[in-house]
Amino acid sequence: MEINWITLIGLVAATFTTIAFVPQAIKTIRTRNTRDLSLAMYIILSTGVILWLIYGIFINDLPVILANAITSVFIISILILKIKYK
Amino acid sequence: MEINWITLIGLVAATFTTIAFVPQAIKTIRTRNTRDLSLAMYIILSTGVILWLIYGIFINDLPVILANAITSVFIISILILKIKYK
Repeated sequence: MEINWITLIGLVAATFTTIAFVPQAIKTIRTRNTRDLSLAMYIILSTGVILWLIYGIFINDLPVILANAITSVFIISILILKIKYK
Repeated sequence: MEINWITLIGLVAATFTTIAFVPQAIKTIRTRNTRDLSLAMYIILSTGVILWLIYGIFINDLPVILANAITSVFIISILILKIKYK
């Protein structure tokens, strides 16, 4: 089986931008400090990721659906913590 | 000219996830407080967005190139501020 290395770059990119929010979510859950986080950022980002998810469902693209479904869990968690502990 | 509303959802999604980092960058430039920001998040996210940009150049996709070129400026700015004012 031949691996297309351009596709591989795309998959690694998608993995990185998906898991990036995990350390922020862990940090915020642990410290409960959200002062330096921008509420506007997490509202706009949550909306954007949900729109990406809807777009992925419409174009029936599994990587777009998966990446944004997972990312939305982390981003919405951080948004809820920001609203709760601001 | 007919507008494809599925493409429109994708474009709005891309715009939202691109501009989301602007309020965080402005907040961090103004306050210089970065304690609650996760360094790991911004390192992983910067790497991911640069990989998306490289991927976009290889597949020659202008929306992917543009969205990630713009996003990388904001995210790398926040990363530099996080390193500088930690």
